[in-house]
Amino acid sequence: MAVRLAELAVRFGCELSGDPETLVDRVAALQEAEPGSLSFLANPKYLRHLAATRASAVVLDAASAAACPTAALIARNPYATYARMAQVLHPEPAVEGGRHPSAVIEAGAEVAPSACVSAGCFVGAGARIGARTLVGPGSVVLAGASVGADCRLVARVTLCHGVRLGDRCILAPGTVIGADGFGQAPDRDGYVKVPQVGTVVIGNDVDIGANTTVDRGAIGDTVIEDGVKIDNLCQVAHNVRIGAHTVLAALVGISGSTTVGRRCLFGGQAGVAGHLEICDDAVFTGRAMVTHSVRKPGVYSSGLSVDEARRFRRNAARFRALDELARRVRRLEGGGATPPGDNSDE
Amino acid sequence: MAVRLAELAVRFGCELSGDPETLVDRVAALQEAEPGSLSFLANPKYLRHLAATRASAVVLDAASAAACPTAALIARNPYATYARMAQVLHPEPAVEGGRHPSAVIEAGAEVAPSACVSAGCFVGAGARIGARTLVGPGSVVLAGASVGADCRLVARVTLCHGVRLGDRCILAPGTVIGADGFGQAPDRDGYVKVPQVGTVVIGNDVDIGANTTVDRGAIGDTVIEDGVKIDNLCQVAHNVRIGAHTVLAALVGISGSTTVGRRCLFGGQAGVAGHLEICDDAVFTGRAMVTHSVRKPGVYSSGLSVDEARRFRRNAARFRALDELARRVRRLEGGGATPPGDNSDE
Amino acid sequence: MAVRLAELAVRFGCELSGDPETLVDRVAALQEAEPGSLSFLANPKYLRHLAATRASAVVLDAASAAACPTAALIARNPYATYARMAQVLHPEPAVEGGRHPSAVIEAGAEVAPSACVSAGCFVGAGARIGARTLVGPGSVVLAGASVGADCRLVARVTLCHGVRLGDRCILAPGTVIGADGFGQAPDRDGYVKVPQVGTVVIGNDVDIGANTTVDRGAIGDTVIEDGVKIDNLCQVAHNVRIGAHTVLAALVGISGSTTVGRRCLFGGQAGVAGHLEICDDAVFTGRAMVTHSVRKPGVYSSGLSVDEARRFRRNAARFRALDELARRVRRLEGGGATPPGDNSDE
Repeated sequence: MAVRLAELAVRFGCELSGDPETLVDRVAALQEAEPGSLSFLANPKYLRHLAATRASAVVLDAASAAACPTAALIARNPYATYARMAQVLHPEPAVEGGRHPSAVIEAGAEVAPSACVSAGCFVGAGARIGARTLVGPGSVVLAGASVGADCRLVARVTLCHGVRLGDRCILAPGTVIGADGFGQAPDRDGYVKVPQVGTVVIGNDVDIGANTTVDRGAIGDTVIEDGVKIDNLCQVAHNVRIGAHTVLAALVGISGSTTVGRRCLFGGQAGVAGHLEICDDAVFTGRAMVTHSVRKPGVYSSGLSVDEARRFRRNAARFRALDELARRVRRLEGGGATPPGDNSDE
Repeated sequence: MAVRLAELAVRFGCELSGDPETLVDRVAALQEAEPGSLSFLANPKYLRHLAATRASAVVLDAASAAACPTAALIARNPYATYARMAQVLHPEPAVEGGRHPSAVIEAGAEVAPSACVSAGCFVGAGARIGARTLVGPGSVVLAGASVGADCRLVARVTLCHGVRLGDRCILAPGTVIGADGFGQAPDRDGYVKVPQVGTVVIGNDVDIGANTTVDRGAIGDTVIEDGVKIDNLCQVAHNVRIGAHTVLAALVGISGSTTVGRRCLFGGQAGVAGHLEICDDAVFTGRAMVTHSVRKPGVYSSGLSVDEARRFRRNAARFRALDELARRVRRLEGGGATPPGDNSDE
Repeated sequence: MAVRLAELAVRFGCELSGDPETLVDRVAALQEAEPGSLSFLANPKYLRHLAATRASAVVLDAASAAACPTAALIARNPYATYARMAQVLHPEPAVEGGRHPSAVIEAGAEVAPSACVSAGCFVGAGARIGARTLVGPGSVVLAGASVGADCRLVARVTLCHGVRLGDRCILAPGTVIGADGFGQAPDRDGYVKVPQVGTVVIGNDVDIGANTTVDRGAIGDTVIEDGVKIDNLCQVAHNVRIGAHTVLAALVGISGSTTVGRRCLFGGQAGVAGHLEICDDAVFTGRAMVTHSVRKPGVYSSGLSVDEARRFRRNAARFRALDELARRVRRLEGGGATPPGDNSDE
């Protein structure tokens, strides 16, 4: 879709430097852009690509505007502004209401006439699909699950019985919402399955990545609040609550009954133990391992980065005797030996 | 389903304190329970919720019974006893035998009349589905796979050709059993695929979580013994054997040809290298990384927990020179320098 | 399929010691082989099983041949040679061209007559399926996606719109290729979705494991070059490029815009941060965490292995004060205190 720069500037509140009649019809990276493309500069690392760009216009901040060789759309937050403009240039195809003849929709399901139930889907009794929602090919919506308006279940999504989604959620292929939580009570001869009688409640504007799993609650519900964004292959266990606008990168696991605050960030492969409380605005870098509640906003890390293998192994071997090393230092300092398990000299 | 406390007490061998005629019809957490609910106290952490509970009855141990303000069902193992009672109050819907018209069942498949093959399923030639087993919507059972009695393939489960499941197994949506193991033989110009001619053999009472994968054996089989419980998004590689009643939390990976004993526990995101042997009754905490065989029962850990990022980075930087630090301490002690790679002073 | 040893020796360039007319019709492990089986010895660890093997022939290297009690096929690379022979003895079933009546193939899709579209599949408008390619049961190929010749989408694979695969690729059940990359632009009131307008381009001879996800590019494409082998449950983020013949074991995550060279190896649960460059021939052991670009081929590690839990905790507690410990050693050496954050004495 071709749009005039003037229209973009007005619609998204940018200052425009350049010809307002210039048309752009697609987005492109600075270094690959051709005329007709809109590009952006959000990361100073890519400033070196600005001078030579052939884009018709670039979204950037005021500080970079002087260096822009082409039309500039000057924004306070270039990346978010670019994202909104890209949505205009590359709109999602509109959902055409209807039910593919191969879809199985049980009696008692309520599907909005403007919703699309695609080929090979199953929608169980009592399920509800909201207006303009896409249930993509091969998806399964079990009995009593409900999906709000304007959602996109891209393909092969599974919603288990009774789960509830808000509006404008996007679920990537392979996501599973509402499988039984992992409740196993140990007994003499193994484990007894603990019925998982809660469900999953998901707010509005939640994105969930491919093959991510969100389990239903054991008693009470697993809750994902508005605006949460979850990447691929994450695990959200039973009775977890994730606060609004929190972000999980790929392969993150949150264990059962943990409560995560709002606007938190979890880097890839981070993991959180069960029954913890994480406050608002806590940031965990990739691979962070969280075993205690976090009560203070801030940035938290664990995870050692790679080193040359031989050197890493040598240091790791020393780590296995680190407590002893600390005691030896203490003795050298004249403090005498500390009893085993006493870390009071830290 | 409403049940008298007397019936629960008799059936599950509890001492009952309170009116045996009281009815309960659902479970609830102590702090959210309403009259008519059965609750439980298994973790002393939640003792503070006991006094104010409005539950009609609580399952707990003898030590807590005196503090219970309502009827008490006193059990040796309150959590397992609660689980069994919850199964009575919240039974799984009975499986209605039949084949949905949209299911494709190839000639030569044997499906028990009491089994249910749901909408959109595929069951290949030579596959066998046992009595009262549910094959949920969108599941794929390839040629020659067999499933015992009373299993539940909840939805969109994949069983590859020839895999064998016992009775009473529960497979969550998205699980894939029997995909080819990752056998790649390096050669001059890349890799040659090693045919995976084994299969997967799963015992009775095995639960497998959403989007978990269990690969077929290269030669010989991947084996999961009775009562194993596996959470979501786990990887069990080819020719692994997992002993009876072992538990894997989410995102655990077990590499090829490793043998895991019975009654082991793996915390979330734990990982085990290939060709190892893990004895019975070994417990690995979350994120544990196992690179050597474990021959002694016990609790094993690795994985550093988060610290404030700036401090963590400082310590991690020191870790990169830990071997050198140990040498310096040795010199201070008058032991002289040790040659590189010599850790004999540990 | 029964084959004479002479034929195997000639076809795969082995020296044969033993009767060339001996027939083998299957593969087996050394210690489980029966007459009629072909076995192999590639790992010296299993040499102890050679003397007692009942296999009719063993593929091994020249050094082990003297110890072989049965016919020997002597190869420079026994494992790769075994793999090729196993492909002859255990061939994949030939793909029978055709479209199952339950498959939905939209107008404008091009499916080669020799390709097989199985039960319950969806193939969207403009999609292309090459010669002799299997689209297994329950797979979804969205509009405009293209698959080359001789590929196998085993079952329940999802290819999102417009992704492109080469020839001879094998995709295990549950893989999702081309879901939207995780592009979220932070703004005052949460996140704005960044349209992901690129696609995924996959070369020839690429294997992708069960439930693995490869995201489409934000701008420009995610690229997986020829011969890459990816195990189960891996995540390849948007705009990643993976060089030819690189291997990822299970549960590996590669973050956005990272470029990985050729012939790299990633052990299980390894993770790579975004916007990095990894050179050719870099090897990362299991659980390695890569947060900086790697410019030199070699072996890289991080990840501490398990220790007895009590001891691990004691050492981990010392790690939290490691910077301070290093300062204390410095003082003992007479170097005086270093200011906070100064690591210059490393």
